[in-house]
Amino acid sequence: MSLTQIFATRASRMKASEIRELLKLLDQPGIISFAGGIPDPSLFPATEFAAALTRALSDGRAAQSLQYSASEGHAGLRDWIAGQMAAIGVACGRDNILITSGSQQALDYLGKLFLSPGDTALVGWPTYLGALGAFNAYEPRYDRLDAGSNRAPADYAQAASATGGRVKFAYLSPDFANPTGVTLDRAGREALLDLTDALDCAVIEDAAYQALRYDGEPVPPILALEIARKGDIEACRTIYCGSFSKTLSPGLRLGWVCAATPVIRQMVLLKQAGDLHSATLNQIAMLDVAQGFDGHVTRVRALYRARRDALLAALVQHMPAGVTWTQPEGGMFVWVTLPEGMDGATLLERSLAQEKVAFVPGAAFFPDGSGRNTIRLNFSSPTEAMIADGLARLGRLIAAG
Amino acid sequence: MSLTQIFATRASRMKASEIRELLKLLDQPGIISFAGGIPDPSLFPATEFAAALTRALSDGRAAQSLQYSASEGHAGLRDWIAGQMAAIGVACGRDNILITSGSQQALDYLGKLFLSPGDTALVGWPTYLGALGAFNAYEPRYDRLDAGSNRAPADYAQAASATGGRVKFAYLSPDFANPTGVTLDRAGREALLDLTDALDCAVIEDAAYQALRYDGEPVPPILALEIARKGDIEACRTIYCGSFSKTLSPGLRLGWVCAATPVIRQMVLLKQAGDLHSATLNQIAMLDVAQGFDGHVTRVRALYRARRDALLAALVQHMPAGVTWTQPEGGMFVWVTLPEGMDGATLLERSLAQEKVAFVPGAAFFPDGSGRNTIRLNFSSPTEAMIADGLARLGRLIAAG
Repeated sequence: MSLTQIFATRASRMKASEIRELLKLLDQPGIISFAGGIPDPSLFPATEFAAALTRALSDGRAAQSLQYSASEGHAGLRDWIAGQMAAIGVACGRDNILITSGSQQALDYLGKLFLSPGDTALVGWPTYLGALGAFNAYEPRYDRLDAGSNRAPADYAQAASATGGRVKFAYLSPDFANPTGVTLDRAGREALLDLTDALDCAVIEDAAYQALRYDGEPVPPILALEIARKGDIEACRTIYCGSFSKTLSPGLRLGWVCAATPVIRQMVLLKQAGDLHSATLNQIAMLDVAQGFDGHVTRVRALYRARRDALLAALVQHMPAGVTWTQPEGGMFVWVTLPEGMDGATLLERSLAQEKVAFVPGAAFFPDGSGRNTIRLNFSSPTEAMIADGLARLGRLIAAG
Repeated sequence: MSLTQIFATRASRMKASEIRELLKLLDQPGIISFAGGIPDPSLFPATEFAAALTRALSDGRAAQSLQYSASEGHAGLRDWIAGQMAAIGVACGRDNILITSGSQQALDYLGKLFLSPGDTALVGWPTYLGALGAFNAYEPRYDRLDAGSNRAPADYAQAASATGGRVKFAYLSPDFANPTGVTLDRAGREALLDLTDALDCAVIEDAAYQALRYDGEPVPPILALEIARKGDIEACRTIYCGSFSKTLSPGLRLGWVCAATPVIRQMVLLKQAGDLHSATLNQIAMLDVAQGFDGHVTRVRALYRARRDALLAALVQHMPAGVTWTQPEGGMFVWVTLPEGMDGATLLERSLAQEKVAFVPGAAFFPDGSGRNTIRLNFSSPTEAMIADGLARLGRLIAAG
């Protein structure tokens, strides 16, 4: 018998992220790519990181920076994050913060913490593909979370019991979501809390893009609204996942979880068993660079705002009738709905061959493979000139039908 | 219902590592501690890391170093590791290497890949506590792996089927194991391969300490012996887990897995779903610092060899009759067996109170809590003077009974 035949059943549920595989093909020279979902590297505060790392490795500090450290994370960094959380309405302390290796790791550990096979996770249709990837290993059933659907909690609960489990959490990215760019308004967040209170389940608030708002009024985090309802983070069931990847650097792999202490304590155990702790040196350097967080994020927002504006203007200019798109107030993505019957994957093939323009077909983001007439356009990577040129080509192709 | 009541059943199997909790109490000022298991920070190549990180963040390289990167790891670092593996008898290529965030993460992902609830993992009695911590989340049964026990494969298989699973792997650290310091000889490794071939299961070879040999002849890695049997790594069922934590730095959280490509491909999927990839910057800096690996490890070995010698000499000088201990040829630990009936945990209490000497009671390392008359002594952290002083105190206490 070969070794692969004795893998646990969950191994068969793991598959390569279609997008990551696709990106390997798409980000070729000569192609104008709207396919990526990564920061523009010209924005990375490289000088600041170099200085911070030099300080972290100076005499008297290197012994700590290069050594093992606590599973919960660096105390100073957790304090800084707690301060940032307080500034957006989430009063909390160091014990409410766990440092993770990116928010992807938080999603994996939350799947591990909550999901038994047959349990239900409520997710958007579409939703972030990386979340499905993380949760899939724990063999959940997915049910559709729709803002404003008015579907009764009992209906969710009944459907969940049919596979022998219960609804364990609702997962969503409420601000400028990947892939749609859409923000859930305050009423939608309150309705979600009503639903999850009724279902007695957790909320996983994926806030990866939250700091990247370009205009409009900020909506309080779901966790902030729940604290306003219940008086204290310790009474809350929302688990907030933050990330440094979209603001300072994804290559250092640092994110955090902010939640009630019993959740954090369990996640510390998962972290201890999973990889002991996130890199000590990276945490110390990140705390140092984070002292300039506000100024840096202001520069990030300015660049991405201009690119978003360029993309929205180019869509207006070049898309034929019958094509619609979202109006993101932040983040990195615009979600385009093609005329009924037009297939995003087929369009991509033609687009690559005829126009050398790349994007991600939207069906990949639907747990059930629906949404075939949608595509995701990224605006954090291409320059304004590339956006104008690429959209002219793409519009021509779609108009040709 | 509180959130903790809806955690998956596996959450109840997670508990804080007793040792890590103990270490928080033990490594206090004024105490001579043999309890730790961490490198001496004076050995960290801090200057080399600082220079490597400055290079990695220079113009033209920062855009890559701070960006997302491939889940399998940095190609250059994987090539370097493949070269190191070849030098110890494991002919392999880049595709046989996955970069992990320390070997602890490799153990977690291997548990996730192989173990369904009720499956059996063969482990030493005692064994590395962190491995039990990683595997526990996947709800295995443990059975005792004993070099030279001559227990029939059918007996292992039958016992495994009683809990509805099968033997999925044998886990061991064959060189200077944590906690015993014992090395499995070549005959023992061959016998293990006979057993795991008969059981049709994997071998997880935890090589965390393998580079830290102070004397005696190196024994080929189990994976090298299996390649010698079967001709090619692709025909092998041994999965080798390496680490930079004991040689260059634990604080960067980098290790690797070396195995047949179908195993690596599955683990890449787990890595992608788990945390996307290990920190890009850390991998690039590690490859740079690894250019001086041999010279650096020579310095590490010299310091630890002297401390091991000091500890073995002090044991001879100070331990009363009836106390025995291992003679490690490398690593960081000596395993001491106290007179029958003497309890390691009780001794620790008295030792802290009366002599201000700390160590780890051995029972923590046994899946069944046996081994109460054993203790683990670390020699990588205390200086030779502390070793002499500490062992004089400990010997006095044990002699007093």
